[in-house]
Amino acid sequence: MADPAPAPPWRTTDWLNTDAPLSLERLRGKVVMVHAFQMLCPGCVSRGLPQAARVAELFAGAPLVVVGLHTVFEHHDAMRLPSLRAFLHEYRVKFPIGVDAPGIDGDPIPQTMRAYAMQGTPTTVLIDAAGRRRRQVFGAHEDLVLGAELQTLLLEASLDAGVERAADDGARGCDDGGCAVEPRG
Amino acid sequence: MADPAPAPPWRTTDWLNTDAPLSLERLRGKVVMVHAFQMLCPGCVSRGLPQAARVAELFAGAPLVVVGLHTVFEHHDAMRLPSLRAFLHEYRVKFPIGVDAPGIDGDPIPQTMRAYAMQGTPTTVLIDAAGRRRRQVFGAHEDLVLGAELQTLLLEASLDAGVERAADDGARGCDDGGCAVEPRG
Amino acid sequence: MADPAPAPPWRTTDWLNTDAPLSLERLRGKVVMVHAFQMLCPGCVSRGLPQAARVAELFAGAPLVVVGLHTVFEHHDAMRLPSLRAFLHEYRVKFPIGVDAPGIDGDPIPQTMRAYAMQGTPTTVLIDAAGRRRRQVFGAHEDLVLGAELQTLLLEASLDAGVERAADDGARGCDDGGCAVEPRG
Amino acid sequence: MADPAPAPPWRTTDWLNTDAPLSLERLRGKVVMVHAFQMLCPGCVSRGLPQAARVAELFAGAPLVVVGLHTVFEHHDAMRLPSLRAFLHEYRVKFPIGVDAPGIDGDPIPQTMRAYAMQGTPTTVLIDAAGRRRRQVFGAHEDLVLGAELQTLLLEASLDAGVERAADDGARGCDDGGCAVEPRG
Repeated sequence: MADPAPAPPWRTTDWLNTDAPLSLERLRGKVVMVHAFQMLCPGCVSRGLPQAARVAELFAGAPLVVVGLHTVFEHHDAMRLPSLRAFLHEYRVKFPIGVDAPGIDGDPIPQTMRAYAMQGTPTTVLIDAAGRRRRQVFGAHEDLVLGAELQTLLLEASLDAGVERAADDGARGCDDGGCAVEPRG
Repeated sequence: MADPAPAPPWRTTDWLNTDAPLSLERLRGKVVMVHAFQMLCPGCVSRGLPQAARVAELFAGAPLVVVGLHTVFEHHDAMRLPSLRAFLHEYRVKFPIGVDAPGIDGDPIPQTMRAYAMQGTPTTVLIDAAGRRRRQVFGAHEDLVLGAELQTLLLEASLDAGVERAADDGARGCDDGGCAVEPRG
Repeated sequence: MADPAPAPPWRTTDWLNTDAPLSLERLRGKVVMVHAFQMLCPGCVSRGLPQAARVAELFAGAPLVVVGLHTVFEHHDAMRLPSLRAFLHEYRVKFPIGVDAPGIDGDPIPQTMRAYAMQGTPTTVLIDAAGRRRRQVFGAHEDLVLGAELQTLLLEASLDAGVERAADDGARGCDDGGCAVEPRG
Repeated sequence: MADPAPAPPWRTTDWLNTDAPLSLERLRGKVVMVHAFQMLCPGCVSRGLPQAARVAELFAGAPLVVVGLHTVFEHHDAMRLPSLRAFLHEYRVKFPIGVDAPGIDGDPIPQTMRAYAMQGTPTTVLIDAAGRRRRQVFGAHEDLVLGAELQTLLLEASLDAGVERAADDGARGCDDGGCAVEPRG
């Protein structure tokens, strides 16, 4: 198939839970999972954000970064920065969150959401270590499938790094002692 | 590391949900997930068996087989074949189930459970396409991690088959159109 | 309306979790909640029995008795006494359980289930302190509604006991300090 | 015991989901359940508000009113009226919501929350048909117990109305056909 296209750059106005703004360039070489959400989107709060937090925790040992993207496309006055800050505090969201830049010329859809042609929130985007968009899912996403998709990109990264064959990697990654992808605690 | 050891053969007295008894030899070339359970084990009923059923459904397109193993080590009179048959019917368990052979010389632990040194139920065992035991988990297992572990073994299998590089496999396996590992419906 | 009819007597072959067999006569003066179930009925295991256990715990201070009734109408060989005993042990069911007497003349429906004209399992039956059947629900039953129905029968019992007006009862039963119906711990 | 004290009046700045502001005087004669919450309180969103919505639906046939009270005592800038409006819209909250009046002299605790000496959110307050506070619970509250407490106050109301004995009421309220307190659909 044709090589997947590079993931569009992120256009953001603020970053929370991180010392410095993040960018795909800065994250090149790592697998990136983007969780696009709105703080007042019930499906994001009940399922999407908890899933993203579990990924961040369970894949902590892997070259993978979970990034939240606050893509507000409705009720803009209701989800300003102070509200988002309080939300992240109350819901104990610890991973980096970028605030998507407001739409241009009165477009209600923020710029990054528009560039990725997201259908709504929550949306999960998987970006490989080469910065290519490999998967985009609107709505709830199965943990089993997400885990498999993330591992595919992680093993590719190790292959492309040419360090070793994925089989060896896998062998060391998955024996009775545990897995490269290992739950913490 | 040392090559993982071959998975011990299964010693069973009956098979349900399958026309012919299964064996690791017959399944060579496929990744095998064994879910060892007891029909009266609450954790197996509430979490383990539903997880195994989701794996069987979500990985239906992959060279992976989910096998249940009824490893009764307590209340033997309570979980005879007629009870198991009714249980599988009422709980809509569709994947193949082997009945572990009774322990030898009055051992309450059935033979396969003993051979695998399982600590109890539920226990999940992952066996690679070469028939080697690669992972064994006692108790609840995280969907995200299980999905990653299964994908590791599936990608290894495709590598060892020498058909293609895992990267390409992954590339084709995970684009916007979907993934090799894809939820049905 | 016409007075509700007396609840049919229970016809049982065995009792578990109790020193002596129970009967509606022995329980006269108390509100009785009957939970009719089958040990291999998924809805009973996942919702009905846990609800019955919560009622037994939360209403422990009230003149109310929770009684389980094992009404097997299918897979009879799968749910004999040894299986039921193991099931109650593994699922930590502590309240008294009566085993409904087998149907007559080859009737697959056991005698008490037939006498109550139950449609299936789980079925919840509420019997007032005078031994009258006041409510029968097939399938899942809302906690909020069940709590209200039980309290109705409990307050009636205190009224009929002529001890005091329900209002006073309620007043003492429900103040800032707590309720006559009070969660333990 | 001493008669329970009258419930303190509500001091609010806005009302949503209602044509006219509500007050305890206006609701005299009905049982009132107050659910005090904050829109960014996880326990309120995941458990408290859904419980209040179930009560409003399941007791729709009874002389009972469910009232939400937005008692913001932290992150005030994050939960202004536009945010609350959007929250109620997205979470499909349909019952009347009063916005508690800001604390006096810089008190972070709003006036009604202070008057009721609430310990935090969520807090459930039950007020009888005579306007007396009968129950106040901080944190999650058991459906079974809440249902019983509400029914106690509803039966008292019918007694005080002198229309009929609670027993008859109960008899008509709870027969095989159903209950005065009946789930809709």
